[in-house]
Amino acid sequence: MRQVSIVGIGQVQVGEHWDLTLRQIGYQAIKSAIEDAGVESVDAVYVGNMLSESLNRQAHLGALIADFSGLRGVEAIRVEAADASGAAAFRAGVMAVASGLCDTVVVLGIEKMTDALPAETQAALALGEDREYEANHGVTQASLAALLMQRYMFEFGATLEQFAAFPVTAHKNGAWNPFAMFRRAIKPETYLRAGPLAEPVNLFDSAPICDGAAAVVLTSRENAAKLALNHPAVHVIGSAVATDAVAIHDREDPLFLEAAYLSSQRAYLQAGVTPDDIDLFELHDSFSVLAAMSLEACGFANKGEGVKLASEGGIELGGRIPISTMGGLKARGNPVGATGVYQIVEVALQLRGEAGENQIQDARIGMAQNLGGSGGTAITHILARE
Amino acid sequence: MRQVSIVGIGQVQVGEHWDLTLRQIGYQAIKSAIEDAGVESVDAVYVGNMLSESLNRQAHLGALIADFSGLRGVEAIRVEAADASGAAAFRAGVMAVASGLCDTVVVLGIEKMTDALPAETQAALALGEDREYEANHGVTQASLAALLMQRYMFEFGATLEQFAAFPVTAHKNGAWNPFAMFRRAIKPETYLRAGPLAEPVNLFDSAPICDGAAAVVLTSRENAAKLALNHPAVHVIGSAVATDAVAIHDREDPLFLEAAYLSSQRAYLQAGVTPDDIDLFELHDSFSVLAAMSLEACGFANKGEGVKLASEGGIELGGRIPISTMGGLKARGNPVGATGVYQIVEVALQLRGEAGENQIQDARIGMAQNLGGSGGTAITHILARE
Repeated sequence: MRQVSIVGIGQVQVGEHWDLTLRQIGYQAIKSAIEDAGVESVDAVYVGNMLSESLNRQAHLGALIADFSGLRGVEAIRVEAADASGAAAFRAGVMAVASGLCDTVVVLGIEKMTDALPAETQAALALGEDREYEANHGVTQASLAALLMQRYMFEFGATLEQFAAFPVTAHKNGAWNPFAMFRRAIKPETYLRAGPLAEPVNLFDSAPICDGAAAVVLTSRENAAKLALNHPAVHVIGSAVATDAVAIHDREDPLFLEAAYLSSQRAYLQAGVTPDDIDLFELHDSFSVLAAMSLEACGFANKGEGVKLASEGGIELGGRIPISTMGGLKARGNPVGATGVYQIVEVALQLRGEAGENQIQDARIGMAQNLGGSGGTAITHILARE
Repeated sequence: MRQVSIVGIGQVQVGEHWDLTLRQIGYQAIKSAIEDAGVESVDAVYVGNMLSESLNRQAHLGALIADFSGLRGVEAIRVEAADASGAAAFRAGVMAVASGLCDTVVVLGIEKMTDALPAETQAALALGEDREYEANHGVTQASLAALLMQRYMFEFGATLEQFAAFPVTAHKNGAWNPFAMFRRAIKPETYLRAGPLAEPVNLFDSAPICDGAAAVVLTSRENAAKLALNHPAVHVIGSAVATDAVAIHDREDPLFLEAAYLSSQRAYLQAGVTPDDIDLFELHDSFSVLAAMSLEACGFANKGEGVKLASEGGIELGGRIPISTMGGLKARGNPVGATGVYQIVEVALQLRGEAGENQIQDARIGMAQNLGGSGGTAITHILARE
C-alpha cells in the first residue's frame, strides 16, 4: 500500500452564501486547494455531500463540479454517509491514491443548506436517521441529541454549567478563524441563558445551518517528496470507517458511540499511536453531548467523564486534548457534507504550523473524526507532519 | 497494486417489490453474494444508490443496510454518480481491496423506485441532469434521449427499423434470465407499433421503472486463490471512470459519448486488450440511442454505424459483440443505482460459464459500462476468467 499525503488545502468561509450557487462554492474550494498544492493536474475528484439531492435538487455532483472546475474528463464520484459524507469522500481519495489507481486527486466537501426553507432543511437532515423507526415519527437531529443529553445528565450527574465548556471553547477558537461562520467569543452565562431547541439542547449546544466547501489535494508520499511545495506535506497515517445501528434505540448502549470507538481503535492501530500521542482532535461537536461522548469513545476520558474533562479546561488550546481548535462545528459552522473536509483542512493547518492565533505548539499528530446520523457512522483520520 | 477478484455474486429478481422494503431487498442480495462466495466475514460494504434520498426519504444507506444485513460495525459507505452509482460503488470496492485497506468487501447496488408516484420518480431521475440548465426547464431523461435519437436519425440516416434490433435482442435474451423483469421476446412489429414516450423514443426504446438489488463479493486475487470456492473467481483487469459535461448541449459533440470513450480507452489500456478481445459487452441501453452511441464510443462501430451493427445481427448472442446478454436495462430492468452491479453480476455469470441458455461460448473477457446522466459519467470495467 502506498502512503498518502495532503499537499494542498482550500476552504471557503462558512456562512450564508446567497450570491453563490452550489457549483460555484465547490469550484472556489477546489481552485484554492489546487493552487495551494501547486500541481498542474489531478486524476480524480471525490465529492462529499449529504443534502444536495433534497435541498438543491441536484445529484451527480461529481461530474457537475469537476466540469465546472475545469476538470472535465477526470474520474469524479460523490460519496455519502449522512453527516460523515466529507470524511467518507476523504476516505475514497485515500483509497484511490493508496491503491495506485490514481496518482493525484482532489477531495471536496460541499453543502449548500440555505437555499431551502428551514423546515425543509430539518426534514432533509433527518434523512441520516432511520426512516422507518425514527424520522417517520417526527424526530429531528436536535431532538435525538436532546434525548441523549437528558439521559447523559441523568446517568452521570452532568450539569449545564459543565456542558458550557464545549460552546465556550468552540466560539473562543472560532473568533480567530477567518473561515469561521461565527467569530465572537461567548460567555458561559450567554450559553446558560440561550433559548432551547429541544430541551436540554439549546441554541449554543447545536451547530448552525450554513453553506460551505473545503477541499484537499492528495498524492502519494513518494510523489509529495518530489513536488516543490510551498507548504509542508501532511501524511495520512490512519484511516478507518466504522458503523453502528442507525436507530439510536437499537444500539447496545445509546450513551456509548460504538462506531467512534471502533473507528478510532482501528486508526490508532494503523498509525501505531495511542490517545496520548494525539496533539489535537477535531471531533464532531454538532451537539455538545456528542462532543462529550466522542471524547469518551476515543479514549480521552472515561465513560461519563467527557464533560468533566471539558469543564476543567482539558479541551482548550493549551489543555490535555485541544478540540475544535478552529471553532469546531458550532463556531466554524457545520455545512453538513463539507464538515469532514473542513476538519481535515484544520488539522493540516495545525500540523503545518499555519493555524495563527489558534496554533497548538509543536503539533505533530492530529486526529479528525466525522460522525454521520448521530453516530451511525464514524470516520477517523490521523494525520502527522514530517 | 493488488489485483482484485470477484468471488461471490447475488441478485434479486428485478420487478415491483411491493412486499419488501429497501433494506430488505438489500439484505437479500448481500446474503446471496456472501453465501455464493462462502466467506465468513467482510470488512466493508459499498452501496450504489441514486434515488433513495428522494423516493424513500432515506440517506445513510451504508450503515443502515450493513446493520440490517448482520454486518454492524463494518465500514459502510454509499456512492453516487447518478445512473452510474452501481458501477461507482464497484469502483470503490475495487479501490478498497487494491489498496490493501480492506481484504474482503461487498458491493451492493440497490434501488427501490416503485414506492413513489410516477411523476415523483421522473422528477427524481432528472436529478442526474444539470439542474440549472436542463432539469429546471422540465426536460426528462426520456426527452433528452428523444433529442439525441432524433438528431442521430437525421445525421446518420438511421431508421426505426434499424433501432428495433436493440429492444428485440434485449427482450429475446431477457426471456431466459430468471432475474429479469420482462421475460417475453418481442417482434420488430411490436416495437414499431409501441406508443411514444417522447418521439421518436417509444415504450420499448426505454428501460422500465423498477426495484432491484445486486451484490458482489471482492477480495484480492491472492486471497481468492486460497479460498475453497464453489465457482471460479473472475478477475478485474480494467477499471476506469470518466466524466463529460452533464448538460448535453454543453458537450463537444452531443452525438459522441466522450466519457464512454475515455473510460473505455483507460480500461483497455489497463487490461492490455482491444475491443476485438471483448467477448461480451453489458452496455447502458437505458435508451436505444445510448446503446448505439456506446458501441461507437467504445470502438465496436464507427460513428453513426452503431445501429447498422445492431440491425445486421452483430449484437446477438452469436454476433460480433454480444450485448445485453441477460436482457440489458430494457428487459432485465433498470433499477437505476443497482444497474451497474447487475451488469457486473451478468458478466461474471458469463465468464463462469453459468449463463444458461444465454451463455456466450468460451467467454473469456467481458466488459460492463454504466452511464450516469445520459453520459455525464461513464464507468467501465473489464473482467476476465482465469
